Amino acid sequence: MKFTCYKSDLNEALQFAVRAVAVKPMTPILTGIYMRAEGSVLEIHSNNFATGIIVRIPVNTEIPGEVVVNGKKLHEFVRSIPGETLVLSDEIDSSVLKIDASSAGVELLTMSCSDFPKVKYSEGENSFQIRTKTLRDLIRKTVFAVAKEDSRPVFTGCSFELAKDRILMVATNTHRLALASELLPETYPSCSFVVPAESLRGLLARISPDDVDNQVTVSYSTRYLMFSFDNVFVSSRLIEGMFPPYDRVIPSTNTTLVTVDTAEFKAAVDFVALMSKETEYNTVKFTFGDNNIEVSSASPEIGGAVKHVKAEIEGEDLEISFNVNYIADVMRVIDSQKVNIGLTNRLSPAVFTEPDNDGYVYVATPVRA
Amino acid sequence: MKFTCYKSDLNEALQFAVRAVAVKPMTPILTGIYMRAEGSVLEIHSNNFATGIIVRIPVNTEIPGEVVVNGKKLHEFVRSIPGETLVLSDEIDSSVLKIDASSAGVELLTMSCSDFPKVKYSEGENSFQIRTKTLRDLIRKTVFAVAKEDSRPVFTGCSFELAKDRILMVATNTHRLALASELLPETYPSCSFVVPAESLRGLLARISPDDVDNQVTVSYSTRYLMFSFDNVFVSSRLIEGMFPPYDRVIPSTNTTLVTVDTAEFKAAVDFVALMSKETEYNTVKFTFGDNNIEVSSASPEIGGAVKHVKAEIEGEDLEISFNVNYIADVMRVIDSQKVNIGLTNRLSPAVFTEPDNDGYVYVATPVRA
Repeated sequence: MKFTCYKSDLNEALQFAVRAVAVKPMTPILTGIYMRAEGSVLEIHSNNFATGIIVRIPVNTEIPGEVVVNGKKLHEFVRSIPGETLVLSDEIDSSVLKIDASSAGVELLTMSCSDFPKVKYSEGENSFQIRTKTLRDLIRKTVFAVAKEDSRPVFTGCSFELAKDRILMVATNTHRLALASELLPETYPSCSFVVPAESLRGLLARISPDDVDNQVTVSYSTRYLMFSFDNVFVSSRLIEGMFPPYDRVIPSTNTTLVTVDTAEFKAAVDFVALMSKETEYNTVKFTFGDNNIEVSSASPEIGGAVKHVKAEIEGEDLEISFNVNYIADVMRVIDSQKVNIGLTNRLSPAVFTEPDNDGYVYVATPVRA
Repeated sequence: MKFTCYKSDLNEALQFAVRAVAVKPMTPILTGIYMRAEGSVLEIHSNNFATGIIVRIPVNTEIPGEVVVNGKKLHEFVRSIPGETLVLSDEIDSSVLKIDASSAGVELLTMSCSDFPKVKYSEGENSFQIRTKTLRDLIRKTVFAVAKEDSRPVFTGCSFELAKDRILMVATNTHRLALASELLPETYPSCSFVVPAESLRGLLARISPDDVDNQVTVSYSTRYLMFSFDNVFVSSRLIEGMFPPYDRVIPSTNTTLVTVDTAEFKAAVDFVALMSKETEYNTVKFTFGDNNIEVSSASPEIGGAVKHVKAEIEGEDLEISFNVNYIADVMRVIDSQKVNIGLTNRLSPAVFTEPDNDGYVYVATPVRA
């Protein structure tokens, strides 16, 4: 194998691909990244079985071939090696991949290509199209609400639900729930599947808000799903099982409706969180009344903190407490200038919505304080 | 107690003072920061017994008084509280310090002022004056070479030696040694003492390269030393004992003299260090010859890396290996455009010097590879 490429292309591709290199692998081969050069394309594979990544970059292949080397080290060296173009090569029956730059060289021991679990292109008949920006918003507005790894498996992922021309994503840890939906330009057959949060977080890392708004093809079968866009392919296993019905946990009425500036409310929550962190249950208290929100928290060991925020409040005055992370998390993803908070009483869930977006709902269960 | 101050002044002072708040204190009082307001001055003390810090800032005192509160929390809240000016107050016999800003308030539980180990102003008859920039350079060019905490106590500090109008600082872990000296504008009586590296690192954090070049007064007694400048006072215990004679470990002759561009050599060492990290002893090999330095490292599990750097080489060709950290560390503090490396053979120490600075010497012992 022998090919020439731009260092920046290879570095960018590896930076993403290393995300699917196993951190504590069961077998050494999973520390590897697989590369295959042919013609004008290098294909890079990484696979930790939960997530698989394929990235293609343009190269100039002199001798086609394939190789597996330690992924983390390959990325470290390619990132740091001087020069603009690199030559990567191995010799038949050698066990070394050479990376040559102007004044520097690296040799990495190779591993067996046949042992490496190459990522399979999804051949699923089922697929739909979505814009990268839409997909990014759906993921980032829900994925934070998933349950931790040690919970029921189905709640460690986000549920995708497709119905006609609407896509809906839901995540919950049973104490809070985030639901985002968007219209698609076309109509598709109904389907639903649960995708591990880790795969979605990996995908988020590749879709920058500054990127051109691309088309993503999502192909799925019963056990796997693949996102394809822009010479990048991210495959993910699906989590078995389905979400229980969640519609009824979203309160449909409220007796107190609050509208408050998103940035001001977020700042108040983040400030008082410094004290909530010192309490046993991360508790933050909200007192709604007189068109004012008092955000406060008290710790018996450290003291107390309070911040006032002006708000429009319709309906009854109310005092209600939450785990501060449940509120701080949603305030990080609210995009509208103001946020609506619907409340009923101090034991009933609060509902966060964006005034200009019917598609987003976040529900948080209060703590009894 | 009641005073008003600028948030930025208090925040900056606390940011430095928290450096001497104990991380894992033996008694809760050492998590505290002590503040005393009187007239136009607030004095802030922190003390972990190895290092003590006093910072003074301008305030407007309405009711003089003193207070001790959790230092880390005080800093977190002052940093995050909104507004430009703050009012800090407590009430007689209350156990709470109040911090009031425009729309936010914090209450921190107070601790006993009489229990707090206030930092003592050094009353030592002995003192000398030095510029902040000179002191900063002396510290940063030597302190990295100290031994780890579990070594002989005297080697965990830097030795200060004053003789007439010259100040000299030395640090060593017995495998490497850094020595920096500077002329002082005045002549002082001879003295020497060993200062813990931790206190010096704390001091470095306060002397930014962008700061105005101030005068520092260094006062010392047999057990303590205090640096005073610009409303900041840093006190440090001294380490008992003296450095053994180290002059003879600095080779006075060499058979190979290398002159190389500092930035290029540093980049080569940092690049090859990525492979050295994978070897048992962090080994990097230098091959000097043909006006070229080959920097290389090989790991049986990962592979090898090599980088070439042009250099002027006088004398015999040589191959010599080091712990890569010993070389990377000194290359971070060399200020001159080129660096001189003096060598004798593969088992003898290398000597690093700056062509334009007689006052700096760094000696590193090779590894047998």
